[in-house]
Amino acid sequence: MSAVLLQQYREKIRTELDRVVSFWLTYSHDTKYGGFFTCIDKKGQVYDDLKYVWLQGRQVWMYCRLYRTMERFHKQEILQAAIAGGEFLRQFARVPSDSSTWKCAFCLTKDGKPVKIQRSIFSECFYIMAMDELSRVTGDKDMQAEAEQMMDHIIHWVRVDPSELGRTKLPGDEPMNSMAVPMMLLSLVQQLTEERDQDLVEKYRETGHWCVQKILQHIQRGGMAILENVSLEGAELNGCQGRLQNPGHALEAGWFLLQFCGTHGDESLQLAAISKFIEPQFQRGWDKEHGGFFYFLDVDGHCPTQLEWSMKLWWPHCEALIALLMAYNNTKKPTLLDRFTEVYEYTFSHFSDPENGEWFGYLTQEGKVALDFKGGPFKGFFHVPRCLYMCERILDGLLGDKN
Amino acid sequence: MSAVLLQQYREKIRTELDRVVSFWLTYSHDTKYGGFFTCIDKKGQVYDDLKYVWLQGRQVWMYCRLYRTMERFHKQEILQAAIAGGEFLRQFARVPSDSSTWKCAFCLTKDGKPVKIQRSIFSECFYIMAMDELSRVTGDKDMQAEAEQMMDHIIHWVRVDPSELGRTKLPGDEPMNSMAVPMMLLSLVQQLTEERDQDLVEKYRETGHWCVQKILQHIQRGGMAILENVSLEGAELNGCQGRLQNPGHALEAGWFLLQFCGTHGDESLQLAAISKFIEPQFQRGWDKEHGGFFYFLDVDGHCPTQLEWSMKLWWPHCEALIALLMAYNNTKKPTLLDRFTEVYEYTFSHFSDPENGEWFGYLTQEGKVALDFKGGPFKGFFHVPRCLYMCERILDGLLGDKN
Repeated sequence: MSAVLLQQYREKIRTELDRVVSFWLTYSHDTKYGGFFTCIDKKGQVYDDLKYVWLQGRQVWMYCRLYRTMERFHKQEILQAAIAGGEFLRQFARVPSDSSTWKCAFCLTKDGKPVKIQRSIFSECFYIMAMDELSRVTGDKDMQAEAEQMMDHIIHWVRVDPSELGRTKLPGDEPMNSMAVPMMLLSLVQQLTEERDQDLVEKYRETGHWCVQKILQHIQRGGMAILENVSLEGAELNGCQGRLQNPGHALEAGWFLLQFCGTHGDESLQLAAISKFIEPQFQRGWDKEHGGFFYFLDVDGHCPTQLEWSMKLWWPHCEALIALLMAYNNTKKPTLLDRFTEVYEYTFSHFSDPENGEWFGYLTQEGKVALDFKGGPFKGFFHVPRCLYMCERILDGLLGDKN
Repeated sequence: MSAVLLQQYREKIRTELDRVVSFWLTYSHDTKYGGFFTCIDKKGQVYDDLKYVWLQGRQVWMYCRLYRTMERFHKQEILQAAIAGGEFLRQFARVPSDSSTWKCAFCLTKDGKPVKIQRSIFSECFYIMAMDELSRVTGDKDMQAEAEQMMDHIIHWVRVDPSELGRTKLPGDEPMNSMAVPMMLLSLVQQLTEERDQDLVEKYRETGHWCVQKILQHIQRGGMAILENVSLEGAELNGCQGRLQNPGHALEAGWFLLQFCGTHGDESLQLAAISKFIEPQFQRGWDKEHGGFFYFLDVDGHCPTQLEWSMKLWWPHCEALIALLMAYNNTKKPTLLDRFTEVYEYTFSHFSDPENGEWFGYLTQEGKVALDFKGGPFKGFFHVPRCLYMCERILDGLLGDKN
């Protein structure tokens, strides 16, 4: 693979990142009530003004990360938008609960009234991501402390006692290890400890390793499958839930593990990340007839019960691009770059909208745009720019320069 | 339209009903723990053993209804299966709650342990349907009383105070009128009062009329649209939720209203049911390119945010067949029978599986089978046999004989 080709990729990815940032800067800011609109149609028009807390937190995080680490995004416009988004979140996202801790709403009206609270940890997780990253650009120590405090609640909910989440404990509802939870927690550990002092690194060290172990429990069937849900002891579960595969999640977990290896230097973990989570997804999750990664699959070949199982969603392709390029960067194994190229070609030719900017999120199995909006209740300013940002940086490293 | 053609339809529908009943009698009974398996693949194999309470209740109801009202299904095998399903429900579906009333679980393990409770009324509604219909074939007065008692709780939750459902009241979560709720309640009023004594009819009379008014509130845009969600006062709501159209629900509401007219004789309501809920769905909800009814549409032409919006699902087509044939039966208007024919042809050529029996439930927009199972978490022994049963009976009436 020639450096020329890598340079072409980088050029394309850089241009695309600029266009994506520009799309959200132009269309998503609510200058009246603060925060971000995320339901944005193909041309940039807001078609719903509900504010989803996951997406508010993710947009603050992404703006700050770009502002802080990429010179061309070190602009007042981006900083101010991140600060305004953070203020909206702090003012409205936290909802008092019966217990001493507070939960975050899942969804708010445009003026900040809570619409829905989920009985899970994810709104709080993206709140933490936003606060920690924002505190890095503003130097706000209170905000950093708030993120850390919320993190301690989440660790308690996940590892000790979930009762404050509000779910009734039912005899048939065995607690299980769903991949999203240790993945999310691991990424928060990485976020909170990155370039922080040693005390904080130490504080979360054990939790980080616990997350890695919980992620590795998803390697099943003698290493031949990554299953989305396993028992707390790491055994395969019964039924659809137990047989579920989510190739996008496996790929994302793969690069989370590689990133963890980067800070903790663990050769065998790197091998597991690449050989179990990343490389085989191309065999297991890729649609050989139409291209693209399936959204869900059943490990025994039954039809998944999720109606969207055969659709091609943007985010698994984003995760695949990061995972394959990171794995190539770590190993220089040519087949990984070939896989990257294949995903890159499918992704840019199917998801990216050359006409109005940003990416479509949801294609049919055959690759036709099925939902033509650019942002929705679950698609905001996150997976696409994070993918482009990560890939650009990895390519910078591979090409040996920063320009 | 010739009687010959109607006879052909009836012959096909009768044969299909026999095949569908046979499929579920053969594959869905759990002879070990009781109740019914509903996750059944294209050939009849159980691929998951969770027991969804909606589907347990619906199967008991459908078996009893067939046993009670159609001579060829007046068989011990069907009665015994219904009784066994009812026993499973009574033993396991009811879950104690903090309040004096009880809720029903949404989902049970195969041996009856509750897995999940929804914060809505629907599991309880299908429990009532099962108990009332079963009490009609067994003559069990306690069971009938239990159904009535539960109905009174549901009316309280819907019309007076929903707090026992367990949803936290949030300032941004305005109570609204979702079509499913008055539709469900109206069908329960019809179920509980059918051929019962006058006291019971009187008891639920006002609730029945209230449901009709709540359904009519969904006529919006000067009569040109049926919107799925409106305010409690019947005003259009903001955003995606307010613009949502669900053609299958509109059609189902249409025939619920016609059925109500049948017992309450109301000419103007019959006109509204046909001209607002039934006839226009063929213009608004039918896919003119590929055929079939869309699952969801946005009244202003935005892309719905539901990933499955453009898919063709079995149940809206079942509801359309009932609604169009019932409307034709009431009016003898030829265009209604033409519409019925068009839906009939699409439905039988796309959903019915001539090879292994029963119907596929989920097609792509283009009409390809997207999920190939016959039963799943939301598809059981209900919409298909109810449609075939209702259509057969209407055709019997139209053809002026019962054979």
